[in-house]
Amino acid sequence: MPAVQAVETVDGWYCLHDFRTVNWSAWKKASEDERKQAIEELNQLMGDWEGIEKEKNGSFGFYTIVGQKADLLFMNLRPTMEELTELETKFNKTKLAEYLEPAYSYVSVVELSTYMSKAEDMENNPEIQARLHPILPKWNHVCFYPMDKRRAGEDNWYAEEFDERARLMYDHGMTGRKYAGKVRQMITGSMGFDDWEWGVTLYAHDVLQFKKLIYEMRFDEVSARFAEFGSFYIGHRKERDDLESIFSV
Amino acid sequence: MPAVQAVETVDGWYCLHDFRTVNWSAWKKASEDERKQAIEELNQLMGDWEGIEKEKNGSFGFYTIVGQKADLLFMNLRPTMEELTELETKFNKTKLAEYLEPAYSYVSVVELSTYMSKAEDMENNPEIQARLHPILPKWNHVCFYPMDKRRAGEDNWYAEEFDERARLMYDHGMTGRKYAGKVRQMITGSMGFDDWEWGVTLYAHDVLQFKKLIYEMRFDEVSARFAEFGSFYIGHRKERDDLESIFSV
Amino acid sequence: MPAVQAVETVDGWYCLHDFRTVNWSAWKKASEDERKQAIEELNQLMGDWEGIEKEKNGSFGFYTIVGQKADLLFMNLRPTMEELTELETKFNKTKLAEYLEPAYSYVSVVELSTYMSKAEDMENNPEIQARLHPILPKWNHVCFYPMDKRRAGEDNWYAEEFDERARLMYDHGMTGRKYAGKVRQMITGSMGFDDWEWGVTLYAHDVLQFKKLIYEMRFDEVSARFAEFGSFYIGHRKERDDLESIFSV
Amino acid sequence: MPAVQAVETVDGWYCLHDFRTVNWSAWKKASEDERKQAIEELNQLMGDWEGIEKEKNGSFGFYTIVGQKADLLFMNLRPTMEELTELETKFNKTKLAEYLEPAYSYVSVVELSTYMSKAEDMENNPEIQARLHPILPKWNHVCFYPMDKRRAGEDNWYAEEFDERARLMYDHGMTGRKYAGKVRQMITGSMGFDDWEWGVTLYAHDVLQFKKLIYEMRFDEVSARFAEFGSFYIGHRKERDDLESIFSV
Amino acid sequence: MPAVQAVETVDGWYCLHDFRTVNWSAWKKASEDERKQAIEELNQLMGDWEGIEKEKNGSFGFYTIVGQKADLLFMNLRPTMEELTELETKFNKTKLAEYLEPAYSYVSVVELSTYMSKAEDMENNPEIQARLHPILPKWNHVCFYPMDKRRAGEDNWYAEEFDERARLMYDHGMTGRKYAGKVRQMITGSMGFDDWEWGVTLYAHDVLQFKKLIYEMRFDEVSARFAEFGSFYIGHRKERDDLESIFSV
Repeated sequence: MPAVQAVETVDGWYCLHDFRTVNWSAWKKASEDERKQAIEELNQLMGDWEGIEKEKNGSFGFYTIVGQKADLLFMNLRPTMEELTELETKFNKTKLAEYLEPAYSYVSVVELSTYMSKAEDMENNPEIQARLHPILPKWNHVCFYPMDKRRAGEDNWYAEEFDERARLMYDHGMTGRKYAGKVRQMITGSMGFDDWEWGVTLYAHDVLQFKKLIYEMRFDEVSARFAEFGSFYIGHRKERDDLESIFSV
Repeated sequence: MPAVQAVETVDGWYCLHDFRTVNWSAWKKASEDERKQAIEELNQLMGDWEGIEKEKNGSFGFYTIVGQKADLLFMNLRPTMEELTELETKFNKTKLAEYLEPAYSYVSVVELSTYMSKAEDMENNPEIQARLHPILPKWNHVCFYPMDKRRAGEDNWYAEEFDERARLMYDHGMTGRKYAGKVRQMITGSMGFDDWEWGVTLYAHDVLQFKKLIYEMRFDEVSARFAEFGSFYIGHRKERDDLESIFSV
Repeated sequence: MPAVQAVETVDGWYCLHDFRTVNWSAWKKASEDERKQAIEELNQLMGDWEGIEKEKNGSFGFYTIVGQKADLLFMNLRPTMEELTELETKFNKTKLAEYLEPAYSYVSVVELSTYMSKAEDMENNPEIQARLHPILPKWNHVCFYPMDKRRAGEDNWYAEEFDERARLMYDHGMTGRKYAGKVRQMITGSMGFDDWEWGVTLYAHDVLQFKKLIYEMRFDEVSARFAEFGSFYIGHRKERDDLESIFSV
Repeated sequence: MPAVQAVETVDGWYCLHDFRTVNWSAWKKASEDERKQAIEELNQLMGDWEGIEKEKNGSFGFYTIVGQKADLLFMNLRPTMEELTELETKFNKTKLAEYLEPAYSYVSVVELSTYMSKAEDMENNPEIQARLHPILPKWNHVCFYPMDKRRAGEDNWYAEEFDERARLMYDHGMTGRKYAGKVRQMITGSMGFDDWEWGVTLYAHDVLQFKKLIYEMRFDEVSARFAEFGSFYIGHRKERDDLESIFSV
Repeated sequence: MPAVQAVETVDGWYCLHDFRTVNWSAWKKASEDERKQAIEELNQLMGDWEGIEKEKNGSFGFYTIVGQKADLLFMNLRPTMEELTELETKFNKTKLAEYLEPAYSYVSVVELSTYMSKAEDMENNPEIQARLHPILPKWNHVCFYPMDKRRAGEDNWYAEEFDERARLMYDHGMTGRKYAGKVRQMITGSMGFDDWEWGVTLYAHDVLQFKKLIYEMRFDEVSARFAEFGSFYIGHRKERDDLESIFSV
């Protein structure tokens, strides 16, 4: 087996998915005053993050998550990973963070592969540049999962020829296109950054479309033979104005 | 390996399985008054959920679970996922929830596949519509487990032809039919919603029939070659009136 | 691959293995009075369980477990699963249970397969009936582990013909017979009830015989090719009279 | 695939590896008096264990472990498993045990296989008997890991012929002999006793020799094809006299 | 399958990666005085470690980690493993360690394989000796992950011939060289010391280069067929002077 040609990527903003579980018992034990201040402090921090989004220096999304895996998702994109580390620490030092237990996190960077176009063409393409530095869609629902490409026996993605991989990714993209206007996706790469190779963040107006898309895609050869999935997280977009009702007890 | 034809689904109500473990030590430390109020509050919430079932806007089931994996299961179905997220949060904010530690949860949607009939025929079929928006059976026992279809080497479900998959599912259904009147099943799909592809919820008058059915089905080709199972949870249906005795200490 | 013939089972009493870890730090903090009352209460509950055994309406075993996986095993058999759920809840509500942290549990039912004889013959065979409703041996040592039959590639138990499976089980039984008088086994089935397909509970006068038996059996074709094992728990039979010394601090 | 000939073992003393993590925060909160008494009590218990070693009724080793997996290892050998269960319980009831959280444990028995010599010859061989009832080496460093022999597809140890297994074990032993005087090993069997098939405990004057030996052995066919490994623990031998400095805060 | 020739290593300093999570809630509850003293104590300890680096008796690195897996990494190299055990215990006994929960650790030794040059030549080569006793680069970013070489079916590293392995490692090294000046790597061996076979520690001026390197390398035959990866940790180098701002609340 001779080595096959690697693929290059073009990369954009760094991304931190920060999932949290509310410790309601402890939260209820806090005084009404403490709770009010804690919400106010988080509200301001989220306001800062929205300010950064307005200046196109990053993006921010806030979501409630259904099921016991997590209650909330705070998602931030920034030009450098250090900025993510800093905002994570700042968040951890807030009063409200004392009641928001870590549930799961993911560190990655917005990534486009060069199976379809050359890296140098992409560097100067404004549409590509916009996709690399995305303002997160204000659509109602979010779905996140990490994934790997399989390396096992006959089904070893990293031993397939470049052209074959490109063909499989193209077919996969065609399935995705059927959902244009229904589901938007952001692929972030995480080799060296986190435990899976990619993170997939999807947005939809109707949660059912996540399932329709993922089920249909599973029959694509690239998924059937090569995809390995981590945990799935699903939730709904919220605004800063929802903080009060979310945390009211 | 050319890609094979995907299968469509028709989907109904969203479903949240919420398994909990009672923290008895903490519960006993609460005052009798606190305990009484906590039970009363949960009783009312469950009453609301039953009201929604009566109006056919959802369904609700309450069960005790045997073994250390969980003590209780609260199961709700609703027309939208947001309603599930909201009722989960409301439940988490109750007094009693302080003593009900998360044990496992599952997020899915009632699903029927179109291996046997066309989606458009199903949309207008009242019997199908009833199955998609089910009132949970008031049978004595419940069994829940999540599952995947295998994608490994020669046993790759998503690489099998549509007709072959349809044949395997038909045979599987034939095994299930032998248990008509003994076991009822509800299949919920969870791709994109939770960590497995499907949830299986079974009801029986006699728990032994769960085992008989699952054992017999394991010899079906579709299970022998393609089924991967998660954890199994088993329990008994309870009423609101049982709350007091369940929580009496 | 055509589907193969399933095997039927005959089933007896339901069984709950309840493994616990003593929280010694908390136990020592209890007052001598509390400790005395807690032991007395458990003693009475175990007395009730022994009474049920005397009336042949179930069976009960109490064991200390070696190693950090657990400290104690409470094992009960009953005609219905509901009785197990009830006794588990009753146990959880005792004072002593506040110091007995859940370590592992297993829910299953005494099972005999019909590879060797027909189900209808077994229903009327008093010896078989006794094995299905067993009084747990008062032998010194106990060993428990759950197991599955493998379904992987060429080694797929559920794709083997009935006669071949019967032959393999027969050979396996022959290995077991060499240990007659040294090791007694009880097989409980748990498909649909717990996370593995079977539980194996062994009794011996000499713990070394567990290892001799299991090692020799591993070379049986049915184990070599098809057995998948969970965690192993090993311990020693204790009486109610031992409660005081076990819990003395 | 016909069943292959099993191998017999000769077995010696039972062995408990008991790994612990020090809860330093809690330990520091204890009063100096409590700490002094706790150390004194453990010192006496360890003195008893050393006394048993002197009378050749068992053996005892005490080690510090590097890394977060554990801080300390208490290792005891005894003629019966009940003695291990009793000493474990006694240890758990000490004052110091309140600050020593369980990290990992292993239950096994000193074992020699009969690939090279007949069991009956071994029973009467004083050198073999000494190896079955070993006084733990007073060498500086210890390494422990559990392992299985693989049963997967073409690499199924339990489906290999006796003579082939004997040849592979012989070759493996030859690699081990190169390390005579540098590394000493004790093999303990744990089928039916714990979650892996064997425990391997190594001693060395120079920790690097553990790595050299294990790396070289991995190229032996028996390891390359058949060995599956659990977690590795490494540490340094300590004396009772070191207790005070280890626990000084 | 005859056994293949093993490879020797030359080994240098022992290495402890110690990842920690800050318990911010507890830290904020400490008094300002306690916090000040705790920081001062850690500052001095880190000062000692830097002193040892200056005398070339070891090396020390301090990093913040992004994401929920850990907040901080303390990394030390020393001539002996005992020194690592001692400094770990000393660190655990500090005041600040009460707020730094263990997140992950790795025990290994700097290792060079002899696929390209003979061990005896390496022993006397000053450049090799410097690589075996490295002063950790003062580059901005760090990335750590443990890995194994696969032993499964056709992809069994330990069954490949020496020359073939050498060829694969050479090709892999060629990929690495493209990143000279961008990424520096330190390989540490951990067979017998920790749960994976090697640890990989990378340094970069630009975090993106970690991802570029690891992605490109995954297409090398040695990675595609033989590499198994553990968790990835990524972070940024900090100085003692940063302690105050990191821990300010």
